[in-house]
Amino acid sequence: MQLVNGTQLVAVVIAGGSGTRFWPLSTADRPKQFLALFGQRTLLQATVDRLQGLVPPERTLIVTAARFAGTVRAQLPHIPLGNIIAEPQARDTAAAIALAGLVCRRRFGNPVMAVLPADHVIEPAAAFHRALRSAAAAARGTGRLYTFGIRPTYPATGYGYLQAGEPAAPPAGEDDGELPHFRVQQFREKPTRDVAEEYVRAGNYYWNSGMFVWSTDTLLAAVERYLPEHARRLFPLEAYIDTPQWEEQLAAAFGRVPKISVDYGIMEKAAEVYMIAAPFRWSDVGGWAALADFLDQDAAGNAVRGVVHGLDARGNVVFCEDASEVVALVGVEDLIVVRAGNRTLVARKDRVEDVKRLVEAMGQPGSG
Amino acid sequence: MQLVNGTQLVAVVIAGGSGTRFWPLSTADRPKQFLALFGQRTLLQATVDRLQGLVPPERTLIVTAARFAGTVRAQLPHIPLGNIIAEPQARDTAAAIALAGLVCRRRFGNPVMAVLPADHVIEPAAAFHRALRSAAAAARGTGRLYTFGIRPTYPATGYGYLQAGEPAAPPAGEDDGELPHFRVQQFREKPTRDVAEEYVRAGNYYWNSGMFVWSTDTLLAAVERYLPEHARRLFPLEAYIDTPQWEEQLAAAFGRVPKISVDYGIMEKAAEVYMIAAPFRWSDVGGWAALADFLDQDAAGNAVRGVVHGLDARGNVVFCEDASEVVALVGVEDLIVVRAGNRTLVARKDRVEDVKRLVEAMGQPGSG
Repeated sequence: MQLVNGTQLVAVVIAGGSGTRFWPLSTADRPKQFLALFGQRTLLQATVDRLQGLVPPERTLIVTAARFAGTVRAQLPHIPLGNIIAEPQARDTAAAIALAGLVCRRRFGNPVMAVLPADHVIEPAAAFHRALRSAAAAARGTGRLYTFGIRPTYPATGYGYLQAGEPAAPPAGEDDGELPHFRVQQFREKPTRDVAEEYVRAGNYYWNSGMFVWSTDTLLAAVERYLPEHARRLFPLEAYIDTPQWEEQLAAAFGRVPKISVDYGIMEKAAEVYMIAAPFRWSDVGGWAALADFLDQDAAGNAVRGVVHGLDARGNVVFCEDASEVVALVGVEDLIVVRAGNRTLVARKDRVEDVKRLVEAMGQPGSG
Repeated sequence: MQLVNGTQLVAVVIAGGSGTRFWPLSTADRPKQFLALFGQRTLLQATVDRLQGLVPPERTLIVTAARFAGTVRAQLPHIPLGNIIAEPQARDTAAAIALAGLVCRRRFGNPVMAVLPADHVIEPAAAFHRALRSAAAAARGTGRLYTFGIRPTYPATGYGYLQAGEPAAPPAGEDDGELPHFRVQQFREKPTRDVAEEYVRAGNYYWNSGMFVWSTDTLLAAVERYLPEHARRLFPLEAYIDTPQWEEQLAAAFGRVPKISVDYGIMEKAAEVYMIAAPFRWSDVGGWAALADFLDQDAAGNAVRGVVHGLDARGNVVFCEDASEVVALVGVEDLIVVRAGNRTLVARKDRVEDVKRLVEAMGQPGSG
């Protein structure tokens, strides 16, 4: 049995997202991955911290928007500067990941890549390492495209689903044999409520976590096959990696790459897609309401960060960027109250989806 | 016809209250009268501004708690320092007013006193002047104790009521003859809702505005008659007014004076109590909900100070101490949202009475 050693992996952290769901804490200049929503570390820092013991900083790449490169550097001072890949424009995840694949091949040969969004919460790290090792071992030299499926805890309509097909034993001797692998029968887009309920009842549907594990050659072959325009525009850049012409060449080519996600562009089309049912707890912390699970709870079921005094106040989520702020609640239920700088949000919990609409109407750019 | 000239009046502004109803804007160190709830001037400043053209600064006395004397000085730099009467302890309004009466007699002989709370809103000033002149003319030399009754606009349970008796023509030639004067048949304490509704139906009940007009000798005679303990403790102080012994003598005597309001102590007992039905708009701005009438209204009926963006937000009151702050409301109705410093209040509008309870539970002193 050959367990994969961490140094054989390259982590590709996707940190380019912009977003307004966490307004007023997040702004156009400071999207979710750069926020410390709980504890002292930002989601990006926690994502890299979580790799400790499995992937060293030298083999950790961060793909981000050029305008966020300074923020990434400041938040991750131990990551080599050359490992921060700055996209001159936002061209969605397929382009970002293909670019990272080229850097992997140029610098490391044909490593297994672990593609990880920068803004998820995953616990505990040991279970996450185990899943990454298992996927990496199964992906090496087999042409498999791996993803992690999250067993749904409710009929979510905000996630895509993976329909698990037959169990797929990892190649003999290549795994610790304990985690269930499946062939993915189909990728399903975000369902309606009714369909989501069917999925949960059926039992073989999993949330698409947006994490991927594959060997570099497998990824780049898939790009060539399913996204030929990406290949035509991006593959010639490989020769310029770590040369003085890199930025100029990247700027000339990148803006012409079609905007498409890796899910739509590759995963939905490819045959050799596999999943591991994740042995870890996962959240994409999609908005203020989702954050409640990660905050302290008071006796009345309010999830709080900050000094919160309540009188007949139940089920509220209160978040203060400056944890020494004082918030008093009287007679209110199921509200989201957020304080950040000179900005305050008060929203009904079941209307947080609309924060995005309001912020856009207020003239705050961003789309997440 | 002899109209009273402003210089014949002395204004006594009662500015000693402490309170928590306007938390988080008001704090123990900064009660309501010192707040700029609308516009640029504080309620205290507006109270003194409102006397312009009727009572000059030299004849304006401010009675306040010793710990607020510095704030009063800072807010009213044009009032002579000697006109700020600093109470060493809080002994309620009868003691404060009796003390002011002694200062009036010592300095001005027997002027008519206009006793005015520092934290009311009254508009327009011209109508207020007219009522003060009419009351002053009728009070001079007649032994009458005057108050202003406010015609109730709803069955309030938070105010005392004046039951108006027979019309009482002011002494001939002493008034402009246009404002209705009544003898006050009875002072009524804060009623229940049912009783308040009866009062409003009856038509001859008025809110007790807590403003009084009388000649100094009439007041001091009433103190002697109805509050002999006040007279015994306080009248000997008159000899020390404007002497170096004043503070010491005041400190020794004042703390022993019984705590009682002028309403309970004198007005409810005296026979010669009169009222003028106020020709001005009046509010004691009793709390955040009452403030709504004085703020800008947006299209959805939100009363706001600050930059407020709403989505399906109706009937809310939003107040930001720093008017450049931004508040976003999503799907919420009939809330009070207040921002001040590092403090935030979110309360249901019909629960604002409980803000006081919560603030006390939080360990903020104050009783208003």
